[in-house]
Amino acid sequence: MLRKGVLFVISGPSGVGKGTLKKALLENMNDLLSSISVTTREPREGERDGWDYFFVTEESFEKKIDQGELLEWARVFSNMYGTPRDFVASNLEHGQDVLLEIDVQGALQVKKKMPEAVLIFVAPPSIHELAMRLTSRAQDSAESISSRLAASEDELKQIDYYDYLLINDDINDTLAKLESIVSAERCRVKNLELR
Amino acid sequence: MLRKGVLFVISGPSGVGKGTLKKALLENMNDLLSSISVTTREPREGERDGWDYFFVTEESFEKKIDQGELLEWARVFSNMYGTPRDFVASNLEHGQDVLLEIDVQGALQVKKKMPEAVLIFVAPPSIHELAMRLTSRAQDSAESISSRLAASEDELKQIDYYDYLLINDDINDTLAKLESIVSAERCRVKNLELR
Repeated sequence: MLRKGVLFVISGPSGVGKGTLKKALLENMNDLLSSISVTTREPREGERDGWDYFFVTEESFEKKIDQGELLEWARVFSNMYGTPRDFVASNLEHGQDVLLEIDVQGALQVKKKMPEAVLIFVAPPSIHELAMRLTSRAQDSAESISSRLAASEDELKQIDYYDYLLINDDINDTLAKLESIVSAERCRVKNLELR
Repeated sequence: MLRKGVLFVISGPSGVGKGTLKKALLENMNDLLSSISVTTREPREGERDGWDYFFVTEESFEKKIDQGELLEWARVFSNMYGTPRDFVASNLEHGQDVLLEIDVQGALQVKKKMPEAVLIFVAPPSIHELAMRLTSRAQDSAESISSRLAASEDELKQIDYYDYLLINDDINDTLAKLESIVSAERCRVKNLELR
């Protein structure tokens, strides 16, 4: 069955384990391709251009931004990082599923430019407590909300833009769910070339 | 995490193996509830009302149709069969996922009344040939289409109403994909009570 490739975006707050999940997912599903970022930072020992990163000058990076060649980008300290639209789009065009692991702001930029991307939010276990509070009929007082939950709540506001929510209580369980999402999306009618 | 129940509808042409898949899925995922049909036919030896079927009179069945109490219904020879809306809706309301296995016409009736239902089309392997023909750039002559493929094509026209397509080449592979779909849908943001 011919079908388009699907762009899977794993995202969530820092420290939630999305890097570990990405690595494990790529090991278990070797027909998934990891996207390669464009960066202005210097290559480290052993890093190869077009393999670990696409290494470019700052001037070239800015030009890519201006020409809409990046699905998302961000400045991290003095370096810039971005996701090349062409690399992702041409792989999808050839039926290759692509995996992207980025922060929440980056994921929302991608979704805006590629609404068909599948956004997966990985949340810390503390989100349980927040969800309980949000869905509870009894309204807790504002004082009872720790600053940590308040931060989670800010992140949670973005969840409507996401397709899936995974609560990373247990890495193996989360990984299994992630694999289910990939398998299921591959059977989705909207991802088939039938029409 | 609190969430609504999801209604999964397994559907497809007769003889495609959807009954076998339903049985195997219920065995593997015991937190799925099979819907119970309403019927006007006589109970057979050992069948229990409210367990195998809800057994009703023809008059009572017609009243249910008139009052919109059936998600879908059909006459099979001299008997009538239907899916009770209340049974399904109240289980979903309590967070219980429900599984329904019905023909294509029934599935489309359900989708109309419950657009949030997850429709899964199980297709015979012969659909590969059809899909190839449909996606091929070279247009085959009308004569080259066997009547079997023509029938499949009619069914395939309904596929846009479905969420997922499973091609039943291998029952174990199809079952694994079906389980992935159930697991993935349980993580879908739209099925969570967060908002």
